[in-house]
Amino acid sequence: MKATQYQGNKTFSVIEKEITPPAKGEVRIKVAYVGVCGTDVHIYHGMMDKRVNFPETIGHEMSGVVDAIGEGVTNYSEGDKVVVRPLDDRLVKDSDKGYNHICENLKFIGIDSEGAMQQYWNVPAFVLHKLKPETDLKLAALIEPLSVATHDVRRSGLTKGETAVVLGGGPIGMLVAMVAKQVGAQVIISEVNPTRIQKAKTLGFDVINPIEEDLVKYVKSKTDNKAADVVFEVAGVQPALDVMCEVAGIRGRIVMVAIHGEKKPVDLFKFFWKELSLIGARVYEKEDYEQSIELITANELPFEEMITDIQPLSNIQEVFESIDKNPSGMKVLMDCSL
Amino acid sequence: MKATQYQGNKTFSVIEKEITPPAKGEVRIKVAYVGVCGTDVHIYHGMMDKRVNFPETIGHEMSGVVDAIGEGVTNYSEGDKVVVRPLDDRLVKDSDKGYNHICENLKFIGIDSEGAMQQYWNVPAFVLHKLKPETDLKLAALIEPLSVATHDVRRSGLTKGETAVVLGGGPIGMLVAMVAKQVGAQVIISEVNPTRIQKAKTLGFDVINPIEEDLVKYVKSKTDNKAADVVFEVAGVQPALDVMCEVAGIRGRIVMVAIHGEKKPVDLFKFFWKELSLIGARVYEKEDYEQSIELITANELPFEEMITDIQPLSNIQEVFESIDKNPSGMKVLMDCSL
Ligand SMILES: NC(=O)c1ccc[n+]([C@@H]2O[C@H](COP(=O)([O-])OP(=O)(O)OC[C@H]3O[C@@H](n4cnc5c(N)ncnc54)[C@H](O)[C@@H]3O)[C@@H](O)[C@H]2O)c1
Ligand SMILES: NC(=O)c1ccc[n+]([C@@H]2O[C@H](COP(=O)([O-])OP(=O)(O)OC[C@H]3O[C@@H](n4cnc5c(N)ncnc54)[C@H](O)[C@@H]3O)[C@@H](O)[C@H]2O)c1
Ligand SMILES: [Zn+2]
Ligand SMILES: [Zn+2]
Repeated sequence: MKATQYQGNKTFSVIEKEITPPAKGEVRIKVAYVGVCGTDVHIYHGMMDKRVNFPETIGHEMSGVVDAIGEGVTNYSEGDKVVVRPLDDRLVKDSDKGYNHICENLKFIGIDSEGAMQQYWNVPAFVLHKLKPETDLKLAALIEPLSVATHDVRRSGLTKGETAVVLGGGPIGMLVAMVAKQVGAQVIISEVNPTRIQKAKTLGFDVINPIEEDLVKYVKSKTDNKAADVVFEVAGVQPALDVMCEVAGIRGRIVMVAIHGEKKPVDLFKFFWKELSLIGARVYEKEDYEQSIELITANELPFEEMITDIQPLSNIQEVFESIDKNPSGMKVLMDCSL
Repeated sequence: MKATQYQGNKTFSVIEKEITPPAKGEVRIKVAYVGVCGTDVHIYHGMMDKRVNFPETIGHEMSGVVDAIGEGVTNYSEGDKVVVRPLDDRLVKDSDKGYNHICENLKFIGIDSEGAMQQYWNVPAFVLHKLKPETDLKLAALIEPLSVATHDVRRSGLTKGETAVVLGGGPIGMLVAMVAKQVGAQVIISEVNPTRIQKAKTLGFDVINPIEEDLVKYVKSKTDNKAADVVFEVAGVQPALDVMCEVAGIRGRIVMVAIHGEKKPVDLFKFFWKELSLIGARVYEKEDYEQSIELITANELPFEEMITDIQPLSNIQEVFESIDKNPSGMKVLMDCSL
């Protein structure tokens, strides 16, 4: 079988490897599609070399079919369509208070251990979610990032009739916007990249470029002056941190999805003054995956539009080079049959 | 009657004034005691000269007795013991979503309009809360700051058996700690001022000086490594902002009580990583006052210990000068009969 390996130094190799039988408690998956995540691009850029034990196969946004069953695994059969929730929580402790998905010793599969960018992949059965026979395997590769979005929206407590502002219309922001709209909220996306603004419009969203238009004024005009009930910070830049406290109305909830590597100035006065809340959100829990699987299987949201390219797995080096050159695309999938 | 007036330039005067009848909808209070708040000290320092229309009588932490009833006021009688909830929310709008206590056009009585540091005070009846005949009027002057604390604890969702860390053992922090303990939480105070550390010990609290001891390590040792469920930031300094994200455990809730006048660096990564929440808290709502009135009337917490000095109203200038010289005291009350 073909497997890809990150080699450090912005280099991937494609190697030939033996297909190995699944160990006890494991399942072998014939991988169908793997999405390229922002995190994978970070790895490619060498920014996670301390964490990634390369040469390593990376990748965690995938779909596939059960190919072989290890000893003791009872709830899966060959041919089942599946996705992996890439959280290895086996080192969970009491002090994690039952929040396994963010437990102190969590290992992220595809970063801290071998990932999906190969034709066959052995994983412990507890990370699997079963799909319906009719679930589209291309769309199913979106279940992982979509689960980030369903988790974020669930953390926000967003309800029908509320107004949500999504700061950043990248892949995650766009999925957050879709889920928020599906809840019945009024959704406004703030994005600066013209290609992505166009994409958001195509998807039917109300989009503002905050460099050209006053976002706070616009949101107030759309809410009888109430401003946003919920703000999703999915841009990861200082201007988004500045505007999040402005665009949130009284008792507004701000969900921190973006990953800020260093301490950043925040307007804490506004947290006091308007009794805002800031809600950290990281990956997903089981129920977020279940919700995403339902959404993807129902296929009533414009998920197809999120997939901007599909490339053979063996083209991995070109795929990362081209994302680097043109980061405005949404989701590139790798077809692992090729 | 005697009334005090802030004159700007660190100066109070004591003037003789006519006692005026309460207007329609108003009640005249014979003021018993007025506590000096950190905000009053800010005003004295000239830091709120833009907001305070001096010469002005300030003061908002008070207790008193109804002395005369204006036209149309039906639910109060002469002789009723009362306190004022100093929030004038008459300019509330729909866009405030029913959160009157933080409405955009809120006026704070005693800052934005005439306050309590006088012998008789006319106020609209809607700001009053009735006390029990047996409520101690000295302790009742603590109801306003205590309501900040009951509000903060309510906002935190703190429950019995959880661990709360209070950063800053000033008057507000100490009251927060008392209310948190009363809920049944394990409470740890972090404070740097030796006089206040001593006071907290006298009140029976577990206190750490974070300059001398590792707060995070200590809290972990007291919680089987879980760290804090709730953190109250009541210090208002950068070291407290730094430690709040460290000392909060997984899914910890941080209540922002302190007022930070400018943007400050915050470790947003930890909000993402541990799914922390930051909860802004400002003043109080009706139910917080009701809870404080019950607590003060029951008098089962060490409230007496919070009152470190009682001075005649006419000594106002000396009172503020001496707070300035020795800011380690807790609450100074002014006795308005003198
Ligand atoms: N919480 C989690 O578990 C989790 C999971 C996945 C990704 N993330 C984080 O979510 C964030 C978004 O992920 P992504 O893959 O969509 O990233 P991305 O970089 O593709 O998207 C960010 C978007 O923000 C836009 N932007 C930049 N400046 C802006 C501004 N001033 N106003 C509005 N938009 C602006 C960019 O043009 C871009 O489209 C990243 O920080 C990522 O690390 C978090
Ligand atoms: N949210 C509200 O509605 C509301 C109402 C009243 C007061 N406040 C604010 O609450 C805060 C506290 O009020 P207060 O009157 O008790 O103020 P205070 O200044 O008397 O108390 C702050 C305490 O923090 C201590 N401190 C300083 N550095 C510290 C550190 N590194 N670690 C731990 N403690 C430290 C100080 O020694 C002091 O005792 C202020 O910021 C005030 O403006 C907010
Ligand atoms: Zn991902
Ligand atoms: Zn006060």
